Amino acid sequence: MNTQPLILRKDQERRLLAGHCWIYSNEVDTQATPLKAFSPGQPVAIFSDHERWIGHGYVNPHSLICARIVTRERAQPLSPALWLKRIHEALALRERLYQRPFYRLIFGESDGLPGLIVDRYDSLLVVQITTAGMERVRGEILAALEQVLRPQFIVLRNDTSIRELEGLERTVETVLGTPTDSMMLIENELTFEVAPITGQKTGWFFDQAENRRRLARYGVGQRVLDVCSYIGAWGLRAAALGAKSVTCVDSSQTALDRVAANAARNQLDKRIHSLHGDAFEVLRELRDQGQRFDTVILDPPAFIKRRKDEKEGNQAYQRLNRLGIELLEPGGLLVTSSCSFHMDRDTFLRGVQLSARRAGRSAQLLETGQQGPDHPVHPAIAETAYLKTCFVRVLPEF
Amino acid sequence: MNTQPLILRKDQERRLLAGHCWIYSNEVDTQATPLKAFSPGQPVAIFSDHERWIGHGYVNPHSLICARIVTRERAQPLSPALWLKRIHEALALRERLYQRPFYRLIFGESDGLPGLIVDRYDSLLVVQITTAGMERVRGEILAALEQVLRPQFIVLRNDTSIRELEGLERTVETVLGTPTDSMMLIENELTFEVAPITGQKTGWFFDQAENRRRLARYGVGQRVLDVCSYIGAWGLRAAALGAKSVTCVDSSQTALDRVAANAARNQLDKRIHSLHGDAFEVLRELRDQGQRFDTVILDPPAFIKRRKDEKEGNQAYQRLNRLGIELLEPGGLLVTSSCSFHMDRDTFLRGVQLSARRAGRSAQLLETGQQGPDHPVHPAIAETAYLKTCFVRVLPEF
Repeated sequence: MNTQPLILRKDQERRLLAGHCWIYSNEVDTQATPLKAFSPGQPVAIFSDHERWIGHGYVNPHSLICARIVTRERAQPLSPALWLKRIHEALALRERLYQRPFYRLIFGESDGLPGLIVDRYDSLLVVQITTAGMERVRGEILAALEQVLRPQFIVLRNDTSIRELEGLERTVETVLGTPTDSMMLIENELTFEVAPITGQKTGWFFDQAENRRRLARYGVGQRVLDVCSYIGAWGLRAAALGAKSVTCVDSSQTALDRVAANAARNQLDKRIHSLHGDAFEVLRELRDQGQRFDTVILDPPAFIKRRKDEKEGNQAYQRLNRLGIELLEPGGLLVTSSCSFHMDRDTFLRGVQLSARRAGRSAQLLETGQQGPDHPVHPAIAETAYLKTCFVRVLPEF
Repeated sequence: MNTQPLILRKDQERRLLAGHCWIYSNEVDTQATPLKAFSPGQPVAIFSDHERWIGHGYVNPHSLICARIVTRERAQPLSPALWLKRIHEALALRERLYQRPFYRLIFGESDGLPGLIVDRYDSLLVVQITTAGMERVRGEILAALEQVLRPQFIVLRNDTSIRELEGLERTVETVLGTPTDSMMLIENELTFEVAPITGQKTGWFFDQAENRRRLARYGVGQRVLDVCSYIGAWGLRAAALGAKSVTCVDSSQTALDRVAANAARNQLDKRIHSLHGDAFEVLRELRDQGQRFDTVILDPPAFIKRRKDEKEGNQAYQRLNRLGIELLEPGGLLVTSSCSFHMDRDTFLRGVQLSARRAGRSAQLLETGQQGPDHPVHPAIAETAYLKTCFVRVLPEF
């Protein structure tokens, strides 16, 4: 094995020894190992300045995160055997936790496979490769997935903007079988038709499945508002839990058409209605009409995509939460989410509290959920924890 | 209404307007309203320096937290009607969430009743009063509890050291009926005998009930180690979920005798063993004997009781977690808790990660649980969030 070495600058190994796996370009001793000498995705053997072994990884000279550690086991360089081992370990967790084959199978760094995301819809795998290092071994990864899971179809949803940071092009490709853009998925005993090829992200938000599951713990009451409903995952769950009337709000008519189809598919169509439009505008109208709900679910797209959007995004979350709170009956349940990594849990909660105060209400936080266990958090990599879902009881002001 | 005013110093109202309810003695304009002029527990009407209304509350001139807001409603001074309203609101939440009458009924500030804790064991209420303000209206509170809940027994467990901060004496009193020190409690379909008069705290740790409930989500495997088991709540739950062999470790033989009795009561005695001794010592011995477990549960008492214990407590958590991790089979589950308020969630998790690295393992955080919804968090009062319970999968090192 003649893997090229990548040498760190003095005292740059501490974070890595604590378990993180990202190396920034300013942490590399570029005199000893010039980044420009590497090709994107090239495997490297990483050492500290005093030749301490760190791990095997891969490099990308064009990216701010210029290298990622894949394994610390010196005898185990990047190879098909390693991919098989990791995929088996990831699958073992999901098979332990899920009765049905619908979940995120691989969650990048958290599963020891930085740069790789795989969602499983039974016989279809939707794969997303986000780094040059993974792109380079794409063939090996796909072969390993085929060997372990024997899928009928594999689709590459390489259309995420993160790929641009690594100098990779954005494409969607089918690499196994000829799947249609319609797959059936079962979540909490409800059946949904999803569009893995053209839908948002990989077609479904598996990360909220666990929080939708635990909605049962809190009960939803009679009237439910599902804001940014996408294709109805929360709304149908609320109806299945006994809500008499669920209003789904989304800015995409295509998504709302799918809500209707999914509602009919589960015999819930009499209880599910939809309102097409901007969430803020629709909520203001409902409020001004004097409408009130027993449960309001807010699951918007990330309002803070980059750190510079922080202030504005914060305000947007607070505005949305205030509107949601104003639409609640006394004692009602607010289920409010943020999937922005740059919005930390405490700041989000503080915003919810401020929104409650401005609406003249008191809030009791019953639980803070995170992404489900098929998106495990790597405890040394803060970036792997991004979803916050607060279950809040809203009362007249104390 | 001639409630005495309490005037704040300039610019001291911001935290209170955001929803917090504690006033520190250095925030009071003691020239306008000398604290020494108040008697402990006296009701006050709180205003900012420019006469802005803040709320009704009570004062204690001898305490660092010299006043607490009870209500912001000006027309609603402290009175039996207010206690009734708050108790009804608290009960409505618990009745919505719990099928059986075993829970924390009142969780102080979070339920709008600062200084009051009430645990419910069906017909027995265990009450704890922690402030002079609540002590002063003790008769009204007990009458309101009797009116709403019609309990057979009420015990005052006023033996917490927090009372000393308020100049209150420590006592245990029965104030209604003649309860014995043995009550039956049902949690997750298991029956436990608890000792509400002489047991730790109020006899049971309701705050972990929800986390024990969700242990089902993760599965426990065959062999389980329950460290700091107290009277067996976690251990019996693990056995009921299918573990073949559960080892409960505790430093109290009385607690372990109760584990055995509770195990027999639920026909789980063949699967539950106990080891008497110091947790650290017992775990080291088990490790050195080469014993391994599929699930290790660590639920120690608070290692950080005061901020000054932070460093030492931190190290104790890390030592305990490292031992727990070393005792796990590959792919095993670590359920690790800290109930120290001074240990924040991120620091705790960082410690678990470090312990895993030192043991040469990788950790995947599947979920971070908090105290159950009968201990709601007041989102403006950080002090009301204290319990962290991490569900962690432990793997050979990535």
